[in-house]
Amino acid sequence: MRIFGDIQSGNCYKVKLLLSFLDLPHEWVHVDILEGGTSKPDFLKMNPNSKIPVLELDNHQYLSESNAILNYLASGTAYLPDDNYLRAKTLQWMFFEQYSHEPYIAVARYIAKYLGLPEDRRSDYESKQAGGHKALRVMETQLAMTKYLVGETPTIADVCLYGYTHVAGEGGFELEQYPRIQAWLQHIQSLPNYRGMQ
Amino acid sequence: MRIFGDIQSGNCYKVKLLLSFLDLPHEWVHVDILEGGTSKPDFLKMNPNSKIPVLELDNHQYLSESNAILNYLASGTAYLPDDNYLRAKTLQWMFFEQYSHEPYIAVARYIAKYLGLPEDRRSDYESKQAGGHKALRVMETQLAMTKYLVGETPTIADVCLYGYTHVAGEGGFELEQYPRIQAWLQHIQSLPNYRGMQ
Repeated sequence: MRIFGDIQSGNCYKVKLLLSFLDLPHEWVHVDILEGGTSKPDFLKMNPNSKIPVLELDNHQYLSESNAILNYLASGTAYLPDDNYLRAKTLQWMFFEQYSHEPYIAVARYIAKYLGLPEDRRSDYESKQAGGHKALRVMETQLAMTKYLVGETPTIADVCLYGYTHVAGEGGFELEQYPRIQAWLQHIQSLPNYRGMQ
Repeated sequence: MRIFGDIQSGNCYKVKLLLSFLDLPHEWVHVDILEGGTSKPDFLKMNPNSKIPVLELDNHQYLSESNAILNYLASGTAYLPDDNYLRAKTLQWMFFEQYSHEPYIAVARYIAKYLGLPEDRRSDYESKQAGGHKALRVMETQLAMTKYLVGETPTIADVCLYGYTHVAGEGGFELEQYPRIQAWLQHIQSLPNYRGMQ
């Protein structure tokens, strides 16, 4: 299989992290979003929504949306529970991530880290702070009850939310006030085959 | 089981629509978001992220995120494919809906229909139009190739995207230029046990 992505994007990194945890062989093809790599005709044939990451399977089937890719790769492993309720809980956190976490934390990080926090984006950047902290409070509440987001063992919900949470500081979200999240980050970093963004 | 929601919200309606297609008995508890129903302490115990819908199971377990609820309810039915790739494709469309469709089409509809398009929200409303049309073009591209989003039979990807697409006009998105989407809406409306938003 091949992955088209940029490892500095949390949405791509979480796929790389799961591939590492599961020790799955793959080829990584770098796509530069700032240079328009996702708007080229060949890319749009793989994903008409022009976003990375994209998974290409051996039979030239394509899958986009980072969290759909995580579900595909984790199927049949301990990272995706078999039980219907626990699987749905795993998905609950992954939809939470795309709607209530990523649009605040990842976008603030993008404005600060990729764009250099230009003056004309400052109000946009600042408007992301309240929503990002709300998402972090929701995670902190859960992690006060369970070691990982869905229980006592890691799932793709954790891989998914680790992606941007562990670099939230680059978007201006300091994690000092979230001790449970800090402990959870360390749990994930201690798992076998863990790898960072670099 | 009980559902807490507002049938006029596409995120809630899509759950109601699947319950109808699957003919599943349930109790519907109306929650008024404009009157702060999702911020009350009893609600926050069910969903700390203060959003509807919420599914309450008989054993007092809770599930939030409309698309996670659809996955839970559809498990073991024809609405959620067993095949790993097709199931991931179904999820791909559902994550697309929450990230690339709902934040444009549902939010524009909310500003126009619920808030009455006040002058101080007009630029916000207008800023949603390009993204909404991009999402509709992505759907149109797929529906030129397959009858439903994941193939020739309906899945929860269709139920999910039907929710806000069939009322996209209320957000200013006219569907005349999307003939495949119009045909797809009619396919869904012709399915046994279909029900509208009312």
